[in-house]
Amino acid sequence: MARINENYLKLKAGYLFPEIARRVKEFSEAHPDNQIIRLGIGDVTQPLAPAIIKAFHEGVDDLTNAKTFHGYGPEQGYEWLIKTIIDKAYAPLGVTLNPSEIFISDGSKCDSANILDIFDLSNKVAICDPVYPVYNDTNVMVGRSGEANDQGYYEGIIYMPCTAENNFTPDFPSEKVDLIYLCYPNNPTGTVATKDQLQGWVDYAIENKSIILFDAAYEAFITEPEIPHSIFEIEGAKKCAIEFRSFSKTAGFTGVRCGLTIVPEELVAVTAAGEKVPLNKLWNRRQCTKFNGVSYPVQRAAAAVYSDEGWAQVKAIIDFYLENAKLIRNGLEEAKISCYGGVNAPYIWIKTPYGMGSWDFFDKLLNECNVVGTPGSGFGPSGEGYFRLSAFGSKENVQEAVKRIQDKWGNK
Amino acid sequence: MARINENYLKLKAGYLFPEIARRVKEFSEAHPDNQIIRLGIGDVTQPLAPAIIKAFHEGVDDLTNAKTFHGYGPEQGYEWLIKTIIDKAYAPLGVTLNPSEIFISDGSKCDSANILDIFDLSNKVAICDPVYPVYNDTNVMVGRSGEANDQGYYEGIIYMPCTAENNFTPDFPSEKVDLIYLCYPNNPTGTVATKDQLQGWVDYAIENKSIILFDAAYEAFITEPEIPHSIFEIEGAKKCAIEFRSFSKTAGFTGVRCGLTIVPEELVAVTAAGEKVPLNKLWNRRQCTKFNGVSYPVQRAAAAVYSDEGWAQVKAIIDFYLENAKLIRNGLEEAKISCYGGVNAPYIWIKTPYGMGSWDFFDKLLNECNVVGTPGSGFGPSGEGYFRLSAFGSKENVQEAVKRIQDKWGNK
Repeated sequence: MARINENYLKLKAGYLFPEIARRVKEFSEAHPDNQIIRLGIGDVTQPLAPAIIKAFHEGVDDLTNAKTFHGYGPEQGYEWLIKTIIDKAYAPLGVTLNPSEIFISDGSKCDSANILDIFDLSNKVAICDPVYPVYNDTNVMVGRSGEANDQGYYEGIIYMPCTAENNFTPDFPSEKVDLIYLCYPNNPTGTVATKDQLQGWVDYAIENKSIILFDAAYEAFITEPEIPHSIFEIEGAKKCAIEFRSFSKTAGFTGVRCGLTIVPEELVAVTAAGEKVPLNKLWNRRQCTKFNGVSYPVQRAAAAVYSDEGWAQVKAIIDFYLENAKLIRNGLEEAKISCYGGVNAPYIWIKTPYGMGSWDFFDKLLNECNVVGTPGSGFGPSGEGYFRLSAFGSKENVQEAVKRIQDKWGNK
Repeated sequence: MARINENYLKLKAGYLFPEIARRVKEFSEAHPDNQIIRLGIGDVTQPLAPAIIKAFHEGVDDLTNAKTFHGYGPEQGYEWLIKTIIDKAYAPLGVTLNPSEIFISDGSKCDSANILDIFDLSNKVAICDPVYPVYNDTNVMVGRSGEANDQGYYEGIIYMPCTAENNFTPDFPSEKVDLIYLCYPNNPTGTVATKDQLQGWVDYAIENKSIILFDAAYEAFITEPEIPHSIFEIEGAKKCAIEFRSFSKTAGFTGVRCGLTIVPEELVAVTAAGEKVPLNKLWNRRQCTKFNGVSYPVQRAAAAVYSDEGWAQVKAIIDFYLENAKLIRNGLEEAKISCYGGVNAPYIWIKTPYGMGSWDFFDKLLNECNVVGTPGSGFGPSGEGYFRLSAFGSKENVQEAVKRIQDKWGNK
């Protein structure tokens, strides 16, 4: 009799964003004339850069002719894309990578979820709180946790609170862990880690023989020159870290789908008997067996992100979103609302005023300002009392949202 | 100390196709002037149909403008694509489906691998032998097997031999199983299952409360009108089956990446306590948490497959490949080589003459005819003594390959 994976039943109802969608739909049906401004989900709104569009079309055109047709590509991605990434995205940081260390994928959400395939269930996992829900939920789904308690913490997962009290800088885990998820610039808090802080994590991981799963999906938004863009800028990181990157936020690929994962050749984990096994080989086997590579025209489009023309265009769009972030942050601070993030990230993390709960603030903002954000508690118990606004809107919408918050609500 | 998933170490060295690539490379470096004809890997060679190209370009153009831009789409796929598939691919078969039962993905390889996420490890699995290696290897990787024995059978997996002796029709498993993989038209043997045979499987699955994982990736190649294209043409199948389909072979999407999985609403499996849980909900949760949808322009391209114009063009390409299949099959039979498949499938399954081993035949064909095929033993122990040729070449190459086999080798 076929049995289900019962770990799925431990998951709390619904992913965060469907619940937001439900409430917005309900409000909008009740108030069809109100113009709702959505600064909730972290989805881009600006069109693809012209250089990317051009390469995308060229990739499609290659498929019109048997001589230039591309069928199955390498599961790991095309070498010309990989080499472009090495030269343009990593070499300028002083990071040297071999082509075999980069795996192109259809997005870093998939990779940061699928990476668990190559690890034993016995590994202890530490995640930040609040956190991108995928890290938590995928660990629950594979059976690395018990049930959730009333607060929303799952038994067996180590949570590292990040709040204003510790300046959103988590302490090292209270007990020995094997896998540590870090995301910088951080989703949802928009905060970053300095080089010293990351060096601390790398040293800790090497000493404790743990692996850092480093999500750098938002690195393109870093404006402060001293902030690292890659964990591999940190000495020793190739011995202890896997990095995920994405074209989604960097170049507006949320609907196009392309990301990458770096698994250094020298990175090892062990068998029960203590034998060291390179993780690069395991991830390669995983991808070859369970994945069939990224759409060829999409890879062509991704490579164009790093052309001189493409990068200039992409950078202008990022600057546009960062200008939105500044408008939101400054506007809310004027209204005496405490804000974090938004300088090196497209997210502004708000401390809800008057100690309001996250969902109460959500409902208030929706009802009174017709602005949609994301309740901080949706990212974990320590997100309670916080709220995320995203800078991925049009300038007009962002200005209007800030004005509404200032007018109708911020000054109360 | 981070530990690896040691199940990966049970896997036999290398996936089949890398080993073929290695031998071909070695031969080709030693004989740089020989023109090698590749009928090995099941990759398409013909360009995309013009109607598909047009829609693909239009999809890309939509991304040039904020008004028509598409960011994150539904993880399950766009409803217009799903409805098109229901109307054009399933309704003509007399199969009624709800949109919520179809999940668009980046390929049926991924889905047939990922589907294991929602099942408990305790489930017993039955696969055909020979078989598409992904079914076997993904079960080994999640830990559903012990080590492989000398023959290549993994302990704990039930193998159902398919050979000329049983007309490539597997017997029901010798012991009770929970998950049964079936692939029709079959890869690698090119054979099909009749309606009666599939009814037998559905009745068996219902009686034994097992789930059929039905891979219909090659259904578009069916020429005989009485052969079912979908497991859901069979009475009762919605109670016991999940179906995978792909645009890869149907419409030349091997490098474009699009597939789909059907999980009927009424399909359930059980918890340890015997509680019934709908698999559709679990797969939906899996996809929402670990996947981010298929590239928007790719979905536009996929929808065009089912336009009147698109389908006529796609059908002409399939007919072209089927004509190749006929050339191979007839040509080899003239040379007194026994062949199977090739009528409702792009694969011809050859009984190697004189009882040669599969890899010996591979080397002989490569060395003497400069033709690359796939050793049957690479698909499982019962494939030993067989060999797969694919019809996905140009007509000239197929004719030349047949001529070489007939001239230099077939008549010995």
